[in-house]
Amino acid sequence: MHAPQNEIIEASAELVARVRERRPHVHCMTNTVAQAFTANMLLALGAIPSMTTALEEIAPFVARADALVINLGTLDRERREACEIAVAKAGEVAAPWVLDPVFVDRSETRAAFASTLIGRHPHAIRLNYAEFATLARAERDTTRFALNHRTVIGLTGATDVVDDGRRRATISNGDALMSKVTAMGCAASAIVAACLAIDRDAANDNPWRATGAGLVILGVAGEVAAARARGPGSFAVEIIDAIHRLDRTTLTSRARVT
Amino acid sequence: MHAPQNEIIEASAELVARVRERRPHVHCMTNTVAQAFTANMLLALGAIPSMTTALEEIAPFVARADALVINLGTLDRERREACEIAVAKAGEVAAPWVLDPVFVDRSETRAAFASTLIGRHPHAIRLNYAEFATLARAERDTTRFALNHRTVIGLTGATDVVDDGRRRATISNGDALMSKVTAMGCAASAIVAACLAIDRDAANDNPWRATGAGLVILGVAGEVAAARARGPGSFAVEIIDAIHRLDRTTLTSRARVT
Amino acid sequence: MHAPQNEIIEASAELVARVRERRPHVHCMTNTVAQAFTANMLLALGAIPSMTTALEEIAPFVARADALVINLGTLDRERREACEIAVAKAGEVAAPWVLDPVFVDRSETRAAFASTLIGRHPHAIRLNYAEFATLARAERDTTRFALNHRTVIGLTGATDVVDDGRRRATISNGDALMSKVTAMGCAASAIVAACLAIDRDAANDNPWRATGAGLVILGVAGEVAAARARGPGSFAVEIIDAIHRLDRTTLTSRARVT
Repeated sequence: MHAPQNEIIEASAELVARVRERRPHVHCMTNTVAQAFTANMLLALGAIPSMTTALEEIAPFVARADALVINLGTLDRERREACEIAVAKAGEVAAPWVLDPVFVDRSETRAAFASTLIGRHPHAIRLNYAEFATLARAERDTTRFALNHRTVIGLTGATDVVDDGRRRATISNGDALMSKVTAMGCAASAIVAACLAIDRDAANDNPWRATGAGLVILGVAGEVAAARARGPGSFAVEIIDAIHRLDRTTLTSRARVT
Repeated sequence: MHAPQNEIIEASAELVARVRERRPHVHCMTNTVAQAFTANMLLALGAIPSMTTALEEIAPFVARADALVINLGTLDRERREACEIAVAKAGEVAAPWVLDPVFVDRSETRAAFASTLIGRHPHAIRLNYAEFATLARAERDTTRFALNHRTVIGLTGATDVVDDGRRRATISNGDALMSKVTAMGCAASAIVAACLAIDRDAANDNPWRATGAGLVILGVAGEVAAARARGPGSFAVEIIDAIHRLDRTTLTSRARVT
Repeated sequence: MHAPQNEIIEASAELVARVRERRPHVHCMTNTVAQAFTANMLLALGAIPSMTTALEEIAPFVARADALVINLGTLDRERREACEIAVAKAGEVAAPWVLDPVFVDRSETRAAFASTLIGRHPHAIRLNYAEFATLARAERDTTRFALNHRTVIGLTGATDVVDDGRRRATISNGDALMSKVTAMGCAASAIVAACLAIDRDAANDNPWRATGAGLVILGVAGEVAAARARGPGSFAVEIIDAIHRLDRTTLTSRARVT
């Protein structure tokens, strides 16, 4: 009844309803490839996205945000500096932030910068298996990594893993077409950020549960979308509609968390 | 018969036909989130978009444009400089330009820059209610603001207002899903710019009427799209199709201008 | 039987199957307008896109790529420098690269930079008629141009031309809606790049045939998409689905190469 798995499923239904009601502001430092899809996924969920990466503007935008996503795609010097400012400001205003170390397996510069940011204790790190393997050289598994870095790992792939070092759940929702649409990972990170923002207000907030809930929301929406899609083009449209229409019954009946 | 409302409705039907025929070039200085959707909306309308923001290239692109949109999203120093060059060049070649002061309510830097640009007399300012409230501190209403700054205000929301200080109309078209798709405001500004470009050629050109026509075109397309959409994902697709298929009968039968 | 036209048609069917199997990495230096659509088209084809343009990262990304696209949209000084690095690195790792000189007819800076890059011998140049007219002042036709610059010309429009100076084919597939979706040209260049990457592995590799195959793939997908689309919005979705579902029968029965 109160098994951790059930906590995540219950949180997914609860948070979808509360995001729509509260409309959290989520600021995303993300690459230009991912911006429009991520913004539309957040809007469909009921959140309010903002996306500026300009050095002069990042602080006031994060100051008014309820959560922050730092995605390392298309990363140049100026954007790295803007990330540092954004993370510092999120700390000041106590907004949770999510790190998305996209493609760290392709560039040592990115991997090094990701390590620096992990030292600043993101509330969650959302990444895929190849990215985790690059960052977690010293650690064998997500549990050790989460403990060492005092964060929640949201590892996504055919099966998702959510681990805060004390609790670990696996989520088996989603569809293969999710890997055929650009920015799906970034959208996952943004949904997790919106969930963290809202969960924060609860008496017993719990970033592990909120991170898992975010991944359940996206995975279930992916399944609903796949049932109607004819390929990755229509899937990208259908998943936005599915996020917009998601309800408690669909989430609790479809969620597969163990 | 010649009521101002009817002028706007008639202009919407007229301008849709003439944009398709004349294919005006619309150059958009806009944020990276909005670029693809805005370009696709302009193409669907029959216009030809260009989007470069590079300092070295902005002058030749604007020199060959029939209208210009300045959208303040994702604004850094270099882009501000490029905006100044673009506005100056538009003046030289007598191309109308539209200011879209997106999110000025979130950043004082943007608000200050928007005020500077308003001093350069945009042909129209397309913005939402929160943005207007930030910019119009000294003025109580759109009429005063339009008069003081010698421009046309195109205020968009549940109801749109078009005001040039002498005439004021309200437009009650559109659908709630329009606020769930990123870049819809930027697309509105771009459609207004295309209408201003074409209206300019008329013997009795009238930026107030052309701005209102642009908002009617988008609002009616939004209603047509909403009738087929299942959520914001399919709505964003349907509104592009609707713009592409829009005809006089649909516009004149659906337009609600008072 | 072994007519050059048949070679292109056969290659289109062969390369679609092999791209799905081999999943080539295609790095695109492209403008921010085109990034998401291009990435999604490559994913639908079965390739793996990457898109960073950051100076510090471009070399390691291209080093791990199987092909490179250089698209000149939204071009500033830093991006020009990154292009130079990318082309040099592609040479080192023997990855084929495609030049897409978008809008060179609008800016002399771009045209000059395109000429510099053509001097570096791209494996193919994918461009439209207006862009070709700007670059080919000295040469009368695609044959002369291809010979002089030792490259393959992939000229796209109502009819496509593929020319390497020794062989010339025309492709009459596609649909008028292709010109109503932004970034369709960039997607064409990216598909050609994926085909060049895979063709390279063949014993008898042939960039002319691979370029033609890429254009046939896109053109046939465009026809399949047009049969289901209601306008450019749904067309952009349908063409991604069509690329994903394309098979030998559809390609060989629909390809029109002479």
